[in-house]
Amino acid sequence: MEEFDFIKSIQPKYYQQSTTIKGIGDDAAILRHTNEDIITTVDTMVENVHFSTKTTEPFHIGYRALAANISDIAAMGGKPTSYLVSIVIPTSWSQESLQQIYNGMQQLARRYRMDLIGGDTVSGKQLSLSITVIGTIRRNKVRYRSSALEDDIVFVTGQLGDSACGLHILLNKDEPICDKYQYFIDRHRMPEPRVNFINECTAIDRISLNDVSDGIANELIEIAEASRKTIVIDYDKVPSHPLLEDFSEEMQFDWKISGGEDFELLGTVSSHNWEQLKISADKTGTAITKIGFVKEDTYKKGIVWMQHNGQRKRLEKSGYTHLRR
Amino acid sequence: MEEFDFIKSIQPKYYQQSTTIKGIGDDAAILRHTNEDIITTVDTMVENVHFSTKTTEPFHIGYRALAANISDIAAMGGKPTSYLVSIVIPTSWSQESLQQIYNGMQQLARRYRMDLIGGDTVSGKQLSLSITVIGTIRRNKVRYRSSALEDDIVFVTGQLGDSACGLHILLNKDEPICDKYQYFIDRHRMPEPRVNFINECTAIDRISLNDVSDGIANELIEIAEASRKTIVIDYDKVPSHPLLEDFSEEMQFDWKISGGEDFELLGTVSSHNWEQLKISADKTGTAITKIGFVKEDTYKKGIVWMQHNGQRKRLEKSGYTHLRR
Repeated sequence: MEEFDFIKSIQPKYYQQSTTIKGIGDDAAILRHTNEDIITTVDTMVENVHFSTKTTEPFHIGYRALAANISDIAAMGGKPTSYLVSIVIPTSWSQESLQQIYNGMQQLARRYRMDLIGGDTVSGKQLSLSITVIGTIRRNKVRYRSSALEDDIVFVTGQLGDSACGLHILLNKDEPICDKYQYFIDRHRMPEPRVNFINECTAIDRISLNDVSDGIANELIEIAEASRKTIVIDYDKVPSHPLLEDFSEEMQFDWKISGGEDFELLGTVSSHNWEQLKISADKTGTAITKIGFVKEDTYKKGIVWMQHNGQRKRLEKSGYTHLRR
Repeated sequence: MEEFDFIKSIQPKYYQQSTTIKGIGDDAAILRHTNEDIITTVDTMVENVHFSTKTTEPFHIGYRALAANISDIAAMGGKPTSYLVSIVIPTSWSQESLQQIYNGMQQLARRYRMDLIGGDTVSGKQLSLSITVIGTIRRNKVRYRSSALEDDIVFVTGQLGDSACGLHILLNKDEPICDKYQYFIDRHRMPEPRVNFINECTAIDRISLNDVSDGIANELIEIAEASRKTIVIDYDKVPSHPLLEDFSEEMQFDWKISGGEDFELLGTVSSHNWEQLKISADKTGTAITKIGFVKEDTYKKGIVWMQHNGQRKRLEKSGYTHLRR
């Protein structure tokens, strides 16, 4: 199949957003957003670096890659509207598998009425999927990670450790998988970015925010460093699924603190806004949990402390960073 | 070096565009364009598919990849303002080479005051560089390939075949390279997208347009098909550098018609606008040449005819398409 025919096959028959003036089919796409700012991010997932075909079906490669990008948009308070997909695909991959990657993206995109507006499909040695998401964001409602203030409440949505637990189960398939753990596998394969929740929070002026793509240790340190504050969290308050307790304490700790890829939102708000935040969470069916607070940082070093077993330990960056040399 | 340190090293110290509200440094970038539409495109270049390190220095990999993307923006009549870079890089590559790729992009970006606003650097087996360019475009001055009309003049900027000739010279380094052919090598390595020319043409309401990334055969067929017209060009009028005549007639033909990557603009305008187009070309120091005309297409098949040696031959899609299965 020629590139052109494949592009035709994935080209939307109509566009969902009235702001899409021109989608696929010429040299570039055109969007018209007059009253809102544009938000954009790009993220690339590479086979055997970010996922393995042993644990991830083509459908879920597409789904997760787009979810990770949408989550970045949510972490700024934005709303995704369109996406461009650049894929490097080995010739050994079938047309059907390639189609499944796009199907995975489409399933998630439909939920947000996002338009596929462009892209590129090229051959290469190793599957690599690069997605650019474009969206809109209300002025003065941007959620920077640098805006945490003293006495803020630290909160997180949903539950942590699910995705890492799901991956662990998939990697150890020779052990019998109990059906009851399917939840973790699903959460690993099809994470749900918290777009609706954050877009319901517009009554709140200031929220400092990250999404949990790396572990919360990393994400909290980023907020603490960018805001030049100290953050203190309580390990026992970090929310997790009850079934996670079936695994060793060490595993639970590792998955909840360094696991990442849960794509939950992690941030800080003034205690005055806590009730309002809970209302927005309720309205969108989102669990939120207080896990700590923000302190003034005398040394401006962006330190994160964690209370655990009666001790206060300093969290180190433990999430996976990709470019180690 | 950790990814984070490298990102810091390429992060601009200031942004050139007042429309860049947030660049690198949080989960996503934010842009504010109130009166103009947004234009965006993504393009990926893969080692040993789109370039070889035998013929292309890291600096030129970056330069050419960004040039190809900017050229897509020019081909719609837009103006590039910002870009996001996703790079998959083998661990065998040095920090210095990676930096050179960014330097190549920066040199071109500076000319258009473009801001680097985001990206991603990940490890992989094969170098792959995916660039998303964002820009602005005036409403009602979008240059679609589908807008050619009967009796339009077919024109092209600059000269064709230079890039393919440059690549040929680089691939045959064992033959002695005459200094006089350095021009072709430079044109291959550092093509110049025609942004300034097309942005000078705003007095003209309608231009149908493509950029020459594949050969002109392909690009003309795209215009003919999208516009449902027939195009007739004259081979003898296709502009090329005088030194190209040092090579065989077959090579010249191949490079000019199917070579591609010259990133010139190829389009059609009403004959009433030809003088105006020439004025815009003169103002921006751009050569333009009439190479043919548009006819009504009785069969709606988008056919391109070429007069050559007293014969009229039908042009076939001969440019390189990447996904052959």
